[in-house]
Amino acid sequence: MRKTLLTAVIALGTYAATAAGAAPATEKKPTADETAIRKVLDEQAAAWNKGDLPGFMAGYWKSKDLTYFSGKERQQGWDAALDRYEKRYRAEGKEMGKLTFSELEVQLLSSEFALVKGRRLVEMKQEKPDGLFTLVMRKTDQGWKIVHDHTSG
Amino acid sequence: MRKTLLTAVIALGTYAATAAGAAPATEKKPTADETAIRKVLDEQAAAWNKGDLPGFMAGYWKSKDLTYFSGKERQQGWDAALDRYEKRYRAEGKEMGKLTFSELEVQLLSSEFALVKGRRLVEMKQEKPDGLFTLVMRKTDQGWKIVHDHTSG
Repeated sequence: MRKTLLTAVIALGTYAATAAGAAPATEKKPTADETAIRKVLDEQAAAWNKGDLPGFMAGYWKSKDLTYFSGKERQQGWDAALDRYEKRYRAEGKEMGKLTFSELEVQLLSSEFALVKGRRLVEMKQEKPDGLFTLVMRKTDQGWKIVHDHTSG
Repeated sequence: MRKTLLTAVIALGTYAATAAGAAPATEKKPTADETAIRKVLDEQAAAWNKGDLPGFMAGYWKSKDLTYFSGKERQQGWDAALDRYEKRYRAEGKEMGKLTFSELEVQLLSSEFALVKGRRLVEMKQEKPDGLFTLVMRKTDQGWKIVHDHTSG
């Protein structure tokens, strides 16, 4: 009887811990939002690596309020961000190369905004620019989109 | 009578618009949080320009989770950010110079987080590095603090 009660208490304790989501930090499961955000970036890299710039740009908020910072240069709006990519990677004699994201950290700031930090590498024939990036992403009706991108390297 | 009624309708309309906070964008008053955030940055610049690095560092979250990105370099934690500033601006033969922030944009992302974008210039005798920055700020018990800084230029 005593053993049965003890087992019941342990079982209840385990149930309560599970219900509260109290898994050890090392086993922390990504939330649905975090998974969705990582998927946007995975899809961006996959599109880039197929030479599909419009597919890559689908990760950005299609708005005049999108901001894109690179080094000292500030682009305002989705069209300006696309134009920068066109000139840098698709003009005569340019190539898109292979894009890899690494050291990704996703932090939900609210139900609507997230902060993403990481490193990106573009491997081309002549050069291999790499650098750090900070993204602010927003959950829109079309899913999570990058509303601000700051890249440096 | 007709004129009086029309006047009343216009007056009511004006009142409703005002009550809903529908002031023209050009007259938009900053919120208390926005004012507090700008004050943190004003105080940082004032401290810097007095050669007061600890005063400047007070704008940063004193945590191992503070992240500081500059160009390709990633610093983790408040101590590492301070160390970088010490080496860059306070070592033998270095100077802090005059710091100016400009083109500041403050966007509240939630009651707890804000995004700040802008440009910064450090005027020294030999060089005048300028560049863009992205800050993520958090409302803590000690007020608004920078939890992530990304600078490039």
